[in-house]
Amino acid sequence: MNYEELYKQIEKKKSFLCVGLDSNPQRFPECIKGLKDSIFEFNKRIIDATAPYCVAYKPNIAFYEAEGANGWNQLQMTVDYIRRNYPEMFIIADAKRGDIGNTAEQYARSFFETMDFDAVTLSPYMGHDTMAPFLKYKDKWVIVLALTSNKSAVQFENQLLEDGMPLYKHIIKDMSSKDGHSFENTMFVAGATRPEELGEIRKLIPNHFILVPGVGAQGGTIEEVAKFGLNNKIGLLVNSSRGIIFASDGDDFDKAAAKEASVMAKKMSKVF
Amino acid sequence: MNYEELYKQIEKKKSFLCVGLDSNPQRFPECIKGLKDSIFEFNKRIIDATAPYCVAYKPNIAFYEAEGANGWNQLQMTVDYIRRNYPEMFIIADAKRGDIGNTAEQYARSFFETMDFDAVTLSPYMGHDTMAPFLKYKDKWVIVLALTSNKSAVQFENQLLEDGMPLYKHIIKDMSSKDGHSFENTMFVAGATRPEELGEIRKLIPNHFILVPGVGAQGGTIEEVAKFGLNNKIGLLVNSSRGIIFASDGDDFDKAAAKEASVMAKKMSKVF
Repeated sequence: MNYEELYKQIEKKKSFLCVGLDSNPQRFPECIKGLKDSIFEFNKRIIDATAPYCVAYKPNIAFYEAEGANGWNQLQMTVDYIRRNYPEMFIIADAKRGDIGNTAEQYARSFFETMDFDAVTLSPYMGHDTMAPFLKYKDKWVIVLALTSNKSAVQFENQLLEDGMPLYKHIIKDMSSKDGHSFENTMFVAGATRPEELGEIRKLIPNHFILVPGVGAQGGTIEEVAKFGLNNKIGLLVNSSRGIIFASDGDDFDKAAAKEASVMAKKMSKVF
Repeated sequence: MNYEELYKQIEKKKSFLCVGLDSNPQRFPECIKGLKDSIFEFNKRIIDATAPYCVAYKPNIAFYEAEGANGWNQLQMTVDYIRRNYPEMFIIADAKRGDIGNTAEQYARSFFETMDFDAVTLSPYMGHDTMAPFLKYKDKWVIVLALTSNKSAVQFENQLLEDGMPLYKHIIKDMSSKDGHSFENTMFVAGATRPEELGEIRKLIPNHFILVPGVGAQGGTIEEVAKFGLNNKIGLLVNSSRGIIFASDGDDFDKAAAKEASVMAKKMSKVF
């Protein structure tokens, strides 16, 4: 999916919500726990319930990997299900991969060929080499970690370099403009716990999409994120994972997820 | 496996060689290509041939992931095979994961419970939170990226912070001493392409093991690495991947791998 197509979906649905499929089997409702392919069955009901309110899904790869080959298979089933039934969705592999050369090529093959994701989250530590193999794919995206919302983010991300600018801003500047990177195939991750910093990031990259993970369980509000992060093509994907998918631990978990997603989408609709 | 046990294996074999299982099916010999579970069959022959000369194996997870659930299954088979037949081996998941909280917990579950790896490579960008869940496991290790040998490593890793010290040294200082981190469960990755930097790293962490990936296809010699990196418990694992496992593309690939590994082990034996 390209930049314009993503923007059109956002405009059509008046939502920039991304639902995070952090599908932890330990938290599944009783009615799901015993099923064969329980992760997929859980995801299917979540997807069917929330699709009207969101434009993107973001499976968190760790939860699938933890189940071994079987989990990996259910990840594939989930991506296929979304593609088949909701072809308008933007699908993000939250993998935070970060390797180089022929290893990065293999990760790209994994997420863009073996599976049909639109985008992969990447860790920028090893520099531009980590991104290049992903950007060879037309209409596929990389989403680069910039400013995350965890406690120890300050340990390195916020460290000032010799020129007085923090590391995460250097990463945004470098990774938004090197060869092959453009606002049409590169996003950045920036947490919502510090909205003013989101405003500073927006100044650095007026056209890029920013993926904001810190809404919901990790704090931060949609209003604040919109105030500091919007651009003239919206330019935001706001993610919520546990706040939506585990809104209820009963058999009504999908209805509860739909309700949470619709509340968020309604708040988002006010900016259009 | 704990620090002393690893050191004892190294002393016994007079080798600190790690064989990287970057098992790319596109490069398999004809005699392997058509087989069911070809990755596992390839690995099995490589392992049987090289086991006398090395103390560690390091599957590069990307090559397994790229094959989907089937690849993941063969990764599990490979780890099980090593554990069963060569219980003295140190097994590293070269995964370069880097996430936080309950996601990092899932990755730890994946590599330390679903599979029985001894260590996982991690990307430090998000700080200490990325490591903590792995260090809850007794006798399991994290291996933190510090100075890598790729071209764009200089883009961020070598950037000087306000105090004039490069980022990678800050990472080594911080990640070697925070709560839970000790030289007994934390290693660092440092490339062999710049041996003097390896010497500086050794001064920062006199007791830690350093995993050196840049020998073989990526350049650097064992003699240089030993000169700058050794400590009184050896303190080094030197990895070679393609130089060993793809030493021949014929049916004799395992014999050729054994030969390459034995040449490296012989060079290593001189330091004991």
